[in-house]
Amino acid sequence: MTPKNIAVFGATGAVGVEMVKVLEERVDGGTLAVRSLRLLASRPGRTVKWRGDDIPVEEVTLESWRGIDVALFAVDSDVSRKWAPVAVEAGSVVIDNSSAFRMAQDVSLVVPEVNPEDIASHAGHGHGKIIANPNCSTIIAMVALAPLHRAAGLVRLCASTYQAVSGAGKAGQEELERQIRDYAATKWDNTNSDPDMFDLPSVPSVFQHQIAFNLIPHIDAFVPDDWYTKEELKMRDESRKILHAPSLRVSATCVRVPVMRSHSEALTIETERPLSPGEARAILERAPGVKVIDEPLKNRYPMPLFASDQDLVHVGRIRRDHSAPEGCHGLVLWVSGDQLRKGAATNAVQIAELL
Amino acid sequence: MTPKNIAVFGATGAVGVEMVKVLEERVDGGTLAVRSLRLLASRPGRTVKWRGDDIPVEEVTLESWRGIDVALFAVDSDVSRKWAPVAVEAGSVVIDNSSAFRMAQDVSLVVPEVNPEDIASHAGHGHGKIIANPNCSTIIAMVALAPLHRAAGLVRLCASTYQAVSGAGKAGQEELERQIRDYAATKWDNTNSDPDMFDLPSVPSVFQHQIAFNLIPHIDAFVPDDWYTKEELKMRDESRKILHAPSLRVSATCVRVPVMRSHSEALTIETERPLSPGEARAILERAPGVKVIDEPLKNRYPMPLFASDQDLVHVGRIRRDHSAPEGCHGLVLWVSGDQLRKGAATNAVQIAELL
Repeated sequence: MTPKNIAVFGATGAVGVEMVKVLEERVDGGTLAVRSLRLLASRPGRTVKWRGDDIPVEEVTLESWRGIDVALFAVDSDVSRKWAPVAVEAGSVVIDNSSAFRMAQDVSLVVPEVNPEDIASHAGHGHGKIIANPNCSTIIAMVALAPLHRAAGLVRLCASTYQAVSGAGKAGQEELERQIRDYAATKWDNTNSDPDMFDLPSVPSVFQHQIAFNLIPHIDAFVPDDWYTKEELKMRDESRKILHAPSLRVSATCVRVPVMRSHSEALTIETERPLSPGEARAILERAPGVKVIDEPLKNRYPMPLFASDQDLVHVGRIRRDHSAPEGCHGLVLWVSGDQLRKGAATNAVQIAELL
Repeated sequence: MTPKNIAVFGATGAVGVEMVKVLEERVDGGTLAVRSLRLLASRPGRTVKWRGDDIPVEEVTLESWRGIDVALFAVDSDVSRKWAPVAVEAGSVVIDNSSAFRMAQDVSLVVPEVNPEDIASHAGHGHGKIIANPNCSTIIAMVALAPLHRAAGLVRLCASTYQAVSGAGKAGQEELERQIRDYAATKWDNTNSDPDMFDLPSVPSVFQHQIAFNLIPHIDAFVPDDWYTKEELKMRDESRKILHAPSLRVSATCVRVPVMRSHSEALTIETERPLSPGEARAILERAPGVKVIDEPLKNRYPMPLFASDQDLVHVGRIRRDHSAPEGCHGLVLWVSGDQLRKGAATNAVQIAELL
């Protein structure tokens, strides 16, 4: 294992912070060797702890990429679009968490448990190249569904998501916390015993509407004509690319829920060949990155609170799809996975390990 | 309109309180005439406001039903099973909100916007009879889907629900409030800046797990063998009965979410005949009990916070189902409706108006 010079760009954001944490765990675990770590952001910032040292977060410049083997990007798409080519030109492999390059023909889109071979499939430009990290909801679904696809051929996916506020970064988590604090203050700290939840003092800025005690069926922008959101279309387009299944039929409804961290999804699938719930369970119990939690009579099933701060995708509620027509093979599953870790940081670091 | 003698049984519960409120609104609105109102509960309790007066809540006895024309039941199934036959024997029509009688062959299961004619379809026992109020999630789905069923023939429904804590009554709402209060107290009122959400001081008693910042894919009991919950099977069995569509194929995933009130549902449907999103929207805009909110570019779509405390089922995000196979006609919708009102109290009072 050759030690690598690694950079994390966007090191102070929710995903960036998690990337540094996962890198440290992986070095401690012996699966990754790091010669040097450079932390970058659009503006210089506070220091971040790395193996006992305080590492300053430097402002990104044209010089930042010199000598960097692997650059983990946890920044917005427009920032990625500006800086990824610069880093590649300097010889780095960029693992980009944004949606900027995911669907580009010469960029691999990788979930290490699913399609690690795709990392090698694009030669890259000069020394470096860009590898894209899929959308968080897509990663979580793919870890659970790819083993079933291999066994029985996935032909249809109908997904309803329950996405945590962490999907909108630290600002999203802070917005939910602020609303909860305002609610508590209005409700219990003064004489108003029944506050109007419509009139919380803080105005939403990250989300389109109040998220505390609410649900918002709107993540990323709407695409006119067919009125899906980009988030919903990502689940279709990225799933097809990751599974090499261009004719897979996917529809999704993506919904923001007042959960701090970890996305959950109700997945109804149809397979080409028969697959019983028992067979699916047995396959998933052997699958990498999956933890089957499916003991309903003991009240054990995936839940976001218990899927957080770890790397496995929790899969349960595995059962026959009662709505599948005669002769069609359908299953329903319920999954939860940590959006900041496996849905973003861990997936990127796993790709770095495979380089 | 002959004035009726009405009783509300379970008058201090979340649904019972709402029934009294809706009765008062309907009397004020001139659609219902009430000669007398009797409030009943398993134990005598506090008084409840009714048109300016304080009405005592009386303990239910064998004598409670004398002279009662319509008895609205908002109690648990076992209490309904015990008292509904007594009320019927005394000559009352019982409108029962529990699941005790819904699937009985000689009991009508009614959503007034959908199958009002079913009220008359069973002669009843003696003077009285039982009419069942459907499950809250089913009512909300049916108000939105029945008009589409009439237009194009519903053959398949795949539902993921996002159900508020009000579905577990006042105790459910209090449990979420208590957890939010504990969280706020731990988080902001002392020196602990990062409380462990797994270690809230109050132990869950209404729900199986902490519901604040969490999702629980478990409502009502699991049915071994096929591992759906009773709540999920109710959506199938009750939908078939209400729509008179015994071969309708339904699968549901029912999930409790940390929302105070109003259930939401992602509904993927398949129809026998073609139905475009535009046609569906036009049909729903004319449909009774429905409010179409579907202007995504203005951030307008159904949300539970804004569906609460009113009677219409909000329907939006109407779009083609990308996962439907060639030659199949599929749509996806997103609905929110007040679980305590249209999902329970209002539906029961509407039935009373039709008697």
